[in-house]
Amino acid sequence: MSRIVALETSDIRFPTSLSLDGSDAMNPDPDYSAAYVIVRTDAGDAGHAFVFTIGRGNDVQVTAIDALAGHLVGREIEPLLDDMGGTFRDIIGDSQLRWLGPEKGVMHMAIGAVINALWDIKAKRAGLPLWQLLSRMTPDEIVDLVDFRYLTNALTREDALGILRAAEKGREERERQLLATGYPGYTTSPGWLGYSDEKLERLAREAMADGFTQIKLKVGADLQDDIRRFRKAREVCGPDFPIAIDANQRWEVSEAIEWVNALAEFHPAWIEEPTSPDDVLGHAEIARGVAPIRVATGEHAQNRMIFKQLLQAQAIEVMQIDAVRVAGVNENIANLLLAAKFGVPVCPHAGGVGLCEAVQHLSMFDFVAVSGTREGRMIEYVDHLHEHFVVPTDIRGGSYTAPTAPGNGMEMKAGSIAEYTWRGQHVA
Amino acid sequence: MSRIVALETSDIRFPTSLSLDGSDAMNPDPDYSAAYVIVRTDAGDAGHAFVFTIGRGNDVQVTAIDALAGHLVGREIEPLLDDMGGTFRDIIGDSQLRWLGPEKGVMHMAIGAVINALWDIKAKRAGLPLWQLLSRMTPDEIVDLVDFRYLTNALTREDALGILRAAEKGREERERQLLATGYPGYTTSPGWLGYSDEKLERLAREAMADGFTQIKLKVGADLQDDIRRFRKAREVCGPDFPIAIDANQRWEVSEAIEWVNALAEFHPAWIEEPTSPDDVLGHAEIARGVAPIRVATGEHAQNRMIFKQLLQAQAIEVMQIDAVRVAGVNENIANLLLAAKFGVPVCPHAGGVGLCEAVQHLSMFDFVAVSGTREGRMIEYVDHLHEHFVVPTDIRGGSYTAPTAPGNGMEMKAGSIAEYTWRGQHVA
Repeated sequence: MSRIVALETSDIRFPTSLSLDGSDAMNPDPDYSAAYVIVRTDAGDAGHAFVFTIGRGNDVQVTAIDALAGHLVGREIEPLLDDMGGTFRDIIGDSQLRWLGPEKGVMHMAIGAVINALWDIKAKRAGLPLWQLLSRMTPDEIVDLVDFRYLTNALTREDALGILRAAEKGREERERQLLATGYPGYTTSPGWLGYSDEKLERLAREAMADGFTQIKLKVGADLQDDIRRFRKAREVCGPDFPIAIDANQRWEVSEAIEWVNALAEFHPAWIEEPTSPDDVLGHAEIARGVAPIRVATGEHAQNRMIFKQLLQAQAIEVMQIDAVRVAGVNENIANLLLAAKFGVPVCPHAGGVGLCEAVQHLSMFDFVAVSGTREGRMIEYVDHLHEHFVVPTDIRGGSYTAPTAPGNGMEMKAGSIAEYTWRGQHVA
Repeated sequence: MSRIVALETSDIRFPTSLSLDGSDAMNPDPDYSAAYVIVRTDAGDAGHAFVFTIGRGNDVQVTAIDALAGHLVGREIEPLLDDMGGTFRDIIGDSQLRWLGPEKGVMHMAIGAVINALWDIKAKRAGLPLWQLLSRMTPDEIVDLVDFRYLTNALTREDALGILRAAEKGREERERQLLATGYPGYTTSPGWLGYSDEKLERLAREAMADGFTQIKLKVGADLQDDIRRFRKAREVCGPDFPIAIDANQRWEVSEAIEWVNALAEFHPAWIEEPTSPDDVLGHAEIARGVAPIRVATGEHAQNRMIFKQLLQAQAIEVMQIDAVRVAGVNENIANLLLAAKFGVPVCPHAGGVGLCEAVQHLSMFDFVAVSGTREGRMIEYVDHLHEHFVVPTDIRGGSYTAPTAPGNGMEMKAGSIAEYTWRGQHVA
């Protein structure tokens, strides 16, 4: 038996606002940041994870992770790892901490970070990448990870078991396929609002040459700009290449419908985050108003209850999970099961700091053991900040190569942690 | 001109878990707490406000308030107070901080605290209680306080102006009525789950004798207990006295419908928080399944977008705002206007620490200047911890006496702040 001896946290911030990487209609000057945690045991384990933020407030997120030390430090880790479902429900069920959400925002994401750090230890101990660890669990073991509270009018334990059992056949074959050919990616790199048209065109051309299956443009600040940029992208990419658009929550419901229809001639592959991520009914109204253009959202969906409703209301045709917005691997398994139940493809949000490294494990698990398909699915890719990770994403021909290194993929290099620990100021 | 010189914060916790005051099916052992802030200027102003929490994590909430110092400290206060709508939208629009919600949870409540503290200064400078300050603003001034973003498919600026203009007639008469007769209250004091049947019966008897218009029982832990306790309360109160029930988010959707219908013979005045506060569609399903029993929720509704949807979906017939869950007075004005637009009565959540002192101002403003009526409306009252406030609530004949002291009502006594500042442990 070994004990957890520390939750080590770091406030890490990259000065991305200086180059306008990541600029969109809602977030003009993000400083991509990580509220980083390492869970350490007296046996030498180090479980890494983080919450992604965009600068100010990263210290608040770090404090929230620190507040969870009481749940973990001093406890034997083996019982926690052996029952990750119980561990998850225990922390999520702390009624005093729950009041701060409930199950949303800073405190919820902090819980996600420590849960993900425990998964990192579990995967490293098993000598497996997280996706493979999860994919080799039995359907019963997987459903034990899920908190079905508030889901049962859309997804019961029995529903989930049925989905997982149906996907048991073929797991090994799909694992082989994944290791051989990877998981499709699409790239947002060309589309940031702060980039010039020339940069957009160059990056769009490169994206196609690199083999990506889709690109995405940020929209929503100025319609005439959007029309011009979308037209240029179409000229570069041709009429059939998928180009999605992303408004980053910029619009009112009626405005979204009008704006998207004004861009319809360019055939957007989907419209992402047209309005408030909390507005399930609004998304449903938009979905009806822009059909057949598909609505996508989820990177800011606070928990499984929002995903449940987006699916129930037929508000989305593409579901975008995020590795760190919800309460970690466990809640994202619920989200994947919900998507499978409703037959909606999951195309995760990524980018930021380490989101690609983290979320690929969930899509790969989904392919092997949940939905059983890569059809119509792809993971977002942004070519930023990968060099800071111990096992950076490996993109080949536009696809994510399945990682084989043990762990959850979230471990940052010690030198990067040290160099980018926030000291109160970015210097241009 | 004067400048803001400090945001002073305190981590204040009362050891309420020792007496089971406030115990319910979801929150068995709360330590009622306040993440407290005083905004100070070099002119000697002190604006008080807080976020209510139930113990652990109160330090996280304090850190989130501290993170807002950069928005306020060093700035001239008069331009901020003269344009409280602009001040609100400026802080709420900080895109980096917004990422931590968006507009929900710890960071959103922190913004609410500093906004409420500024309102305290504005009201004190005007020499008016907050409700009166707000009630004497013009309709145009009031709508300028609101952020209509994400609301316009349910409530436009023009809708809001129409509501406020319609209520202009009679403002003075209603102010007189309010000062003469107060605002109706109901009490939850008898109904905590941790209390014995004898205590429940005694407190229910006292509540009626005190003139309260309704009592409320906590339910949801054990159906047979609920039936027994509800029956005892009916025996004490008689067949016609309103008795509401509150499940504190304990149920699944189908469970809520079954459980409430099993209590229908006792005629609950409403069922409060039957399930997750995020589940708009679930509440709508419950509302259809328990009709004619009314569904109430809102104390954990994270922002105006949730209230909008609860109303659009006809999921609630009673709307329960909370003074500190959302981003302060400004967002609650949006919530009051939404309720008025949909014709749903607002019966605020209160109790906790200072929630009665704070929220009464919003209901009184609603009566004078928004809905124009007290009909079917009442403010929750719990007889705890009022002695710590400089201007404690004044309940007479079961009604809230309209406060006349300048300010927002949230100022705690300096001695109480000092005595209950958290030092890491409650001693039984």
